Amino acid sequence: MTDTPESRLAAAGHVLPIPGAPIAAYVPTVLSGNLLYISGQVSQANGAITKGRLGADMDVAAGQAAAQSCGLYLIAQMKAALGDLGRVKRIVKLGGFVTSTNDFTDQPEVVNGTSELMLLAFGEAGRHARSAVGVPALPRGAAVEVDAIVEVEA
Amino acid sequence: MTDTPESRLAAAGHVLPIPGAPIAAYVPTVLSGNLLYISGQVSQANGAITKGRLGADMDVAAGQAAAQSCGLYLIAQMKAALGDLGRVKRIVKLGGFVTSTNDFTDQPEVVNGTSELMLLAFGEAGRHARSAVGVPALPRGAAVEVDAIVEVEA
Amino acid sequence: MTDTPESRLAAAGHVLPIPGAPIAAYVPTVLSGNLLYISGQVSQANGAITKGRLGADMDVAAGQAAAQSCGLYLIAQMKAALGDLGRVKRIVKLGGFVTSTNDFTDQPEVVNGTSELMLLAFGEAGRHARSAVGVPALPRGAAVEVDAIVEVEA
Repeated sequence: MTDTPESRLAAAGHVLPIPGAPIAAYVPTVLSGNLLYISGQVSQANGAITKGRLGADMDVAAGQAAAQSCGLYLIAQMKAALGDLGRVKRIVKLGGFVTSTNDFTDQPEVVNGTSELMLLAFGEAGRHARSAVGVPALPRGAAVEVDAIVEVEA
Repeated sequence: MTDTPESRLAAAGHVLPIPGAPIAAYVPTVLSGNLLYISGQVSQANGAITKGRLGADMDVAAGQAAAQSCGLYLIAQMKAALGDLGRVKRIVKLGGFVTSTNDFTDQPEVVNGTSELMLLAFGEAGRHARSAVGVPALPRGAAVEVDAIVEVEA
Repeated sequence: MTDTPESRLAAAGHVLPIPGAPIAAYVPTVLSGNLLYISGQVSQANGAITKGRLGADMDVAAGQAAAQSCGLYLIAQMKAALGDLGRVKRIVKLGGFVTSTNDFTDQPEVVNGTSELMLLAFGEAGRHARSAVGVPALPRGAAVEVDAIVEVEA
């Protein structure tokens, strides 16, 4: 079996979701030079938003799973934009937003759900810069939203 | 009449505002290579900040109007930086922040106020990647803040 | 004495901290082309997180000091990544997140603590685009988090 991002994800039991279709006023990805900008992907599973607030009705493990789903959608958007995940040269930057109470301060652990998926899929090329912050609310009640900048082969 | 971003905005009744002068410690725009980074523009009209909190004292329609004003200021900053909006090659990424209650989850509809203005002004070149999140508070009580990355002609 | 970013910081009494070691799932910096992306740096001093919430238990002056510490860590990360701060060509963009009550709206004054440090260290090359927003919570209870994009000499 060829060692590719998709085979590594599959070996860990992950299935790439069908990425969302473009929504009216914006698009999922824009390629500018050799940087692919990916719109914020909200946590979801089986077509339903994964809702929750860390520090209230969602624990860190569930938050990590939600963040992992953001990562799967980010990778699905990469594949939709690039055709072949082999064109991914480097995950450059992730911006993580976590629906949080005022008292919840483990955003890094939550967003690790996305970050570790990038390492799994892309190895060293998956090592990225990151920010992770709390927010009071996200679209559709999502627990987590993550956007990304990815360097691609010219 | 020549079909330009400004003529399309004018035909829809929009007037580009006078962009804010540089504030002490930072600047409105930085051009790096062929990417123009634009500082977060807060919602405002006629020189006054458009204040409000979605889910409390501002409804979605008013939030969209506030977001549209952010878009007008972003475009005004592009013009100030580039001289000619014809140099805009692509709106690459918008980062939208919406002052929200914990229960307000229609940030996408609000930030569409900015996104749709970009489509109106720039057509296909206005189609961008985006993130939209809730925040508890923005500078000067603004309802919406949006920053941008724009690809320009070399 | 040679006039360098480090000599200017030293003359103002600032000591560059030891930047944090890479944390498991992400890295402090990624260089893509001539842009250095720096992970969000949380406010800290002498190895302890500077905690607080603006509008509640921290005033603007203390918030500015917290933001300044984020700037020192950003510069320390630049030095760790580049070896020589003379390779910094331009501070392109700062993203500032301030732990805030719903009523605190002076995020710009707080994040000026970071911005003014960039001007002090890098002069005209330190003039950057910026966004500054409130958030309900940051990692480890930090008062401020700032990430950055920096253009470096090829």
